[in-house]
Amino acid sequence: MLRAAVAAALLATAAPAIAAPPGPARSMTQILDASPPGDWRALDPENTLYIQLPKGRVIIELGPRFAPNHVANIKRLVRQGYFDGLAVVRVQDDYVVQWADPDGKRSVGAAPRTLKAEFERGFDRDLPFTALPDPDTYAPRVGFTDGFPAARDPATGQAWLAHCYGMVGAGRDNGADSGGGTELYAVIGQAPRQLDRNVTLVGRVVQGIELLSAMPRGTGALGFYETPAERIPIVSMKLAADLTPVQRVDLEALRTETPSFAALLQNRRFRQDEWYKVPAGRIDVCNVPLPVRERRSK
Amino acid sequence: MLRAAVAAALLATAAPAIAAPPGPARSMTQILDASPPGDWRALDPENTLYIQLPKGRVIIELGPRFAPNHVANIKRLVRQGYFDGLAVVRVQDDYVVQWADPDGKRSVGAAPRTLKAEFERGFDRDLPFTALPDPDTYAPRVGFTDGFPAARDPATGQAWLAHCYGMVGAGRDNGADSGGGTELYAVIGQAPRQLDRNVTLVGRVVQGIELLSAMPRGTGALGFYETPAERIPIVSMKLAADLTPVQRVDLEALRTETPSFAALLQNRRFRQDEWYKVPAGRIDVCNVPLPVRERRSK
Repeated sequence: MLRAAVAAALLATAAPAIAAPPGPARSMTQILDASPPGDWRALDPENTLYIQLPKGRVIIELGPRFAPNHVANIKRLVRQGYFDGLAVVRVQDDYVVQWADPDGKRSVGAAPRTLKAEFERGFDRDLPFTALPDPDTYAPRVGFTDGFPAARDPATGQAWLAHCYGMVGAGRDNGADSGGGTELYAVIGQAPRQLDRNVTLVGRVVQGIELLSAMPRGTGALGFYETPAERIPIVSMKLAADLTPVQRVDLEALRTETPSFAALLQNRRFRQDEWYKVPAGRIDVCNVPLPVRERRSK
Repeated sequence: MLRAAVAAALLATAAPAIAAPPGPARSMTQILDASPPGDWRALDPENTLYIQLPKGRVIIELGPRFAPNHVANIKRLVRQGYFDGLAVVRVQDDYVVQWADPDGKRSVGAAPRTLKAEFERGFDRDLPFTALPDPDTYAPRVGFTDGFPAARDPATGQAWLAHCYGMVGAGRDNGADSGGGTELYAVIGQAPRQLDRNVTLVGRVVQGIELLSAMPRGTGALGFYETPAERIPIVSMKLAADLTPVQRVDLEALRTETPSFAALLQNRRFRQDEWYKVPAGRIDVCNVPLPVRERRSK
């Protein structure tokens, strides 16, 4: 209890303090192990992307509720084999890894190269939003929708995905409507939240982010690789739905509107293991773990 | 002007809006190029650490104002050659790179292995602090001291360094006073601000962070390498003051209490280049660039 008292005192000069959890501390592992099966949802194979890299596989969950047209177009491109044999062309430290067609010669077939921007969407009752009480630098409200970090503004009625570590977006040129999913990037550094509402986010890396984040940084401007030899091949990009069960790993994500997730949030705000001396009492939307694991029940 | 109006409207529901800069947009490069020489300070060779890795050199500026005893002890250890031949033992994705004595057999000579914690210090008039008006999730006040991201609490009169990307700290065990600088870590992911005031920060990587952040992630618990073969050698750690001028690169840092730095902050809050459509109007203390460059005037 001493720790909670200390935290409350330290927070007194800022926003209202968040109450510390009562009772004995549980670890994050204990919270997840105790969570009922219904607190988890299976990832939809139709919205799960597998990127095969030379060193392993990256898995991305797509977010069609925020970027329906971009997600549909990426799936179209994936199914045409558009991405197979393309490459990681840019790795900028503390920022993004980007993959694209380095030569700009790959056909997109009937898929559009550009789409109207999907930077934000209307916030309505159908959109789940687990709000964080913690203050945020960039947005009036932050929280989680379908397991994605998100933000919203009651004044405009708009909601959008937040640029946290591991989030995946569709690169664009200067025009707002100049992106379409033919170039993708993943965040590998401090959350570049200034990008929120400036570029269409399409999903989140749920497995294998370390294959992207540990890539050698490009030495050109903006972290672009300066020679073709430096580029890292995208061996293939496939939808989980198009793979056989043997090729697939069935993943499930903790639902962000459940008591288990609420317990996890409190656990991360008020770290009670022996190592911590002063629990923060707050958490940034981009510091919240969003657990994804192999499915236990099918 | 449209952009500023949009930003002001969007921020209306949160904390008070920060006024957009008047006049034509300047790029960050233009701001830095126009800065007078007096807005820069030479890094003190007595507080500049060079870490030689197999692939290149990492340079760290030490922060003796916040952690005088830890910094003094690290310098003592460096001068004894304590770190030469040690290794990076842990690379945890989106968190830290840590280097230490893997076998725990290296002598520290007369240097203490542990020191009293230096998690925070008294805030007084002698401590420069360029406060940010932007709201912060974790601390009542955030800003910059001597070019380091920092925080303070008017209620307690204490100030501390903030765990932003590139910050360097002294690892410890469960006891608050169990660290002493024999194990060091650098942040390579989303700012783990929950560590603030829980561990002694000793400095910041000012050059070569990409040599640390692109290291292969460890596959053991907490990102520890599982086999000795995976470890990456620390070839040597030296103070710039102990090198010949030829071995040294003279660096200078933008002073964080200058008009040039204030202009840079506004530039990053209100991105006015053509690419941005909705300027954030705010900035997180860990998203502020802290420019360091080779000295132009000696």
